[in-house]
Amino acid sequence: MGINFKNLLSPKRKDTKMGDYQDLDHVDGVAISSISANLYNTQRDDLVMFYFRDGANHASVYTQSKIRSENIKWNLQQKSKKIFSLIVNTRNANAFTGINGFLSLQKLAELASMKLTEKQKEDDNNPDKIKPKQILFGCTGTIGEPFPYEKIKNSIPELVHNIKYTQNKYIWTKAALGIMTTDTKPKLAMDECKIGNTNIKIYGIAKGSGMIHPNMATTLAYIFTDADLPNELLKNLLKKNVTNTFNAISCDGDTSTNDMLSIFSTGKANNPKIQNISDNKLIEFDQALNNVLLNLAKRVVSDGEGSSKFITIKVKNCNTEKNAKEIGISIANSSLVKTAIAGEDPNWGRVIMAIGKAGVDINLKKLSVKFGELKIVSNGKLFEKYEEEQVKEYMKNPSIDIEVDIFTGTKDFTVFTMDLTNEYIKINSDYRS
Amino acid sequence: MGINFKNLLSPKRKDTKMGDYQDLDHVDGVAISSISANLYNTQRDDLVMFYFRDGANHASVYTQSKIRSENIKWNLQQKSKKIFSLIVNTRNANAFTGINGFLSLQKLAELASMKLTEKQKEDDNNPDKIKPKQILFGCTGTIGEPFPYEKIKNSIPELVHNIKYTQNKYIWTKAALGIMTTDTKPKLAMDECKIGNTNIKIYGIAKGSGMIHPNMATTLAYIFTDADLPNELLKNLLKKNVTNTFNAISCDGDTSTNDMLSIFSTGKANNPKIQNISDNKLIEFDQALNNVLLNLAKRVVSDGEGSSKFITIKVKNCNTEKNAKEIGISIANSSLVKTAIAGEDPNWGRVIMAIGKAGVDINLKKLSVKFGELKIVSNGKLFEKYEEEQVKEYMKNPSIDIEVDIFTGTKDFTVFTMDLTNEYIKINSDYRS
Repeated sequence: MGINFKNLLSPKRKDTKMGDYQDLDHVDGVAISSISANLYNTQRDDLVMFYFRDGANHASVYTQSKIRSENIKWNLQQKSKKIFSLIVNTRNANAFTGINGFLSLQKLAELASMKLTEKQKEDDNNPDKIKPKQILFGCTGTIGEPFPYEKIKNSIPELVHNIKYTQNKYIWTKAALGIMTTDTKPKLAMDECKIGNTNIKIYGIAKGSGMIHPNMATTLAYIFTDADLPNELLKNLLKKNVTNTFNAISCDGDTSTNDMLSIFSTGKANNPKIQNISDNKLIEFDQALNNVLLNLAKRVVSDGEGSSKFITIKVKNCNTEKNAKEIGISIANSSLVKTAIAGEDPNWGRVIMAIGKAGVDINLKKLSVKFGELKIVSNGKLFEKYEEEQVKEYMKNPSIDIEVDIFTGTKDFTVFTMDLTNEYIKINSDYRS
Repeated sequence: MGINFKNLLSPKRKDTKMGDYQDLDHVDGVAISSISANLYNTQRDDLVMFYFRDGANHASVYTQSKIRSENIKWNLQQKSKKIFSLIVNTRNANAFTGINGFLSLQKLAELASMKLTEKQKEDDNNPDKIKPKQILFGCTGTIGEPFPYEKIKNSIPELVHNIKYTQNKYIWTKAALGIMTTDTKPKLAMDECKIGNTNIKIYGIAKGSGMIHPNMATTLAYIFTDADLPNELLKNLLKKNVTNTFNAISCDGDTSTNDMLSIFSTGKANNPKIQNISDNKLIEFDQALNNVLLNLAKRVVSDGEGSSKFITIKVKNCNTEKNAKEIGISIANSSLVKTAIAGEDPNWGRVIMAIGKAGVDINLKKLSVKFGELKIVSNGKLFEKYEEEQVKEYMKNPSIDIEVDIFTGTKDFTVFTMDLTNEYIKINSDYRS
């Protein structure tokens, strides 16, 4: 049952497309515990608790799917100003599990809040009484299977008992591993910044490998900061920064029932109070949050199911950002573009097809397409010095950049995706076996 | 160079999912010629001419992609009441080939119309002079490669010389084979009906295997009838009947630059004149045309790239047909649903995911899902007598029927698609090598 910390630093950790992830250490006010509730019938970690001893301000964005998982319904009902714990399980999405799935969470919240209150009493002279509604849940895995309530319930005491108040890179990595499904790599990112003169940490972990075509939020991503910021402001910051990060990625064009992106701020940094998103003291934090989200979002794509290439699609000079995104997503979700890139085939005609099918008006006489620095289409025609051999060579890179210039306006959007390989089919045609 | 007619009836012809295709024979006023212009650098047929000796009324619907192939641009410019020939080449889409691609077609139309006029003089005492604008083109294959004008030009004399005035099943099959790209099977269909007391034939061929997510028309499909119907009426009939046939299929969610569906009516049957689509004498023809289009559309899906299963998705009782189609297409285009079916995994949770992501309001309390006759979800819950083993057994069928009941209205829509296999990846990651 013990985790071998050395294994966490195995070659698998390395992402040749994205580079290694950063080492996360301690964020004041956050405690972590990761164990195996045997949900996979192996001994891998599958249940992770984040515990905020003095509570945390928080904000979340959730999937826009018309069918939402029970944990998202639960989370949406909790209106507490402070959250004391986030509990994440993998293997089972708790989606389409009906009232039983929901009631299971209620019972788990009651048990966890009781156990955490007991722990507070042991550790502290002046404890808060933690309430069930101060617990949030993240769930990910198969849709429609009965929620493994008993296994999780039986694991809650151990989960609480194992809480570590001081984190280090191993504990963070263990947590990031504990929320994975078909992911092959843990996803962690961090940045630091200042609010006023106060040093602030922003740490994050994410999981996600398939069913990834974001619509508001996508997959699971959790951000932890020691900044002191009110819920309303956290919500605005999250909404603003999700647009060009988690809402700019697509693996397979499928949107999950369980997408959840949350930020928790413990306030331990004691920064100056900020109430307004346009406060100049927030500029650095805003940028650092974007950095962490983008880093995590890219790692999700880079580890997209079966991925062998990381693809960046920059669509430039559209009338609106919406149009630029539509074209970018049309290219990113095209199975024919993705398989051509998997085959290292410079079949740029499929990019043209995908631009056309997006349905956005373009200036065909000026349209330009580049692969990396290589011009393919220029002024709406095959570039006169186009050499297929050069592009073929370029296609061998683990990261492919496609730039499309539409020439109808001034708005850009960048989409991140990956290729479509045999491995994707293999993973998804026997996911449950 | 000669075609072995016996090979046309090889086991490959059999479609285990759709059954064998019908035998087409003669339609008065239609002549056919199929040869190899060596566009594949093999000797397979790749150039097909349909010749209407006394001209044909006609109508077409084309792709709604914002980037259209040069042959579609050409066709859209021709306003002749009568068409004398349709020339179809495979291997090259003549898309994104610029003004050269267009001018090539103009020169080919000049040459073909001259050669056909010469032929008329030989065969006939009172010939029409055929004009370049009375020739239409169908092109399919790789986008963006230079159009093989010389090869096709050099083949026109032989193409005209080989014209057969009387067709039989071999000649039709040869033509259907001659327009294929990655298709593994020729696609033919027919029906017969009456207009008034006159017997009418409706014959059709189609090709298409990838880049198939229809938007108005899709892929190449050509319908030939001896009925006498005016162009305006043909157009209305085509638009009406494309909705639940070619616009109800999806293989990979990609829309081609070259989609083209045409009907040619030679008028040789001498049926009573009809001017109005609501004329009762058209009822049988309308239904028979739908039968032929649906038969061909299903054959396109059944032979979709790498397909191992034919999938029918019926979405029932929506507010609008548009909503029903959105849900159907969302399921049909989900890589996760398609790979699960390929793996014969009854992972119905992915169907739920795809219903949710369509963004259409549903009555979750009543939602029902069936695989074949097996109830999976009933009244918004997993059916109480659901037995995974039964559904697993059902998934082994070559054809899978999914029925979704939304319970918000009275409108239905049925979508046809196929599964997503390793073979799809294989075909599309080295299409051009």
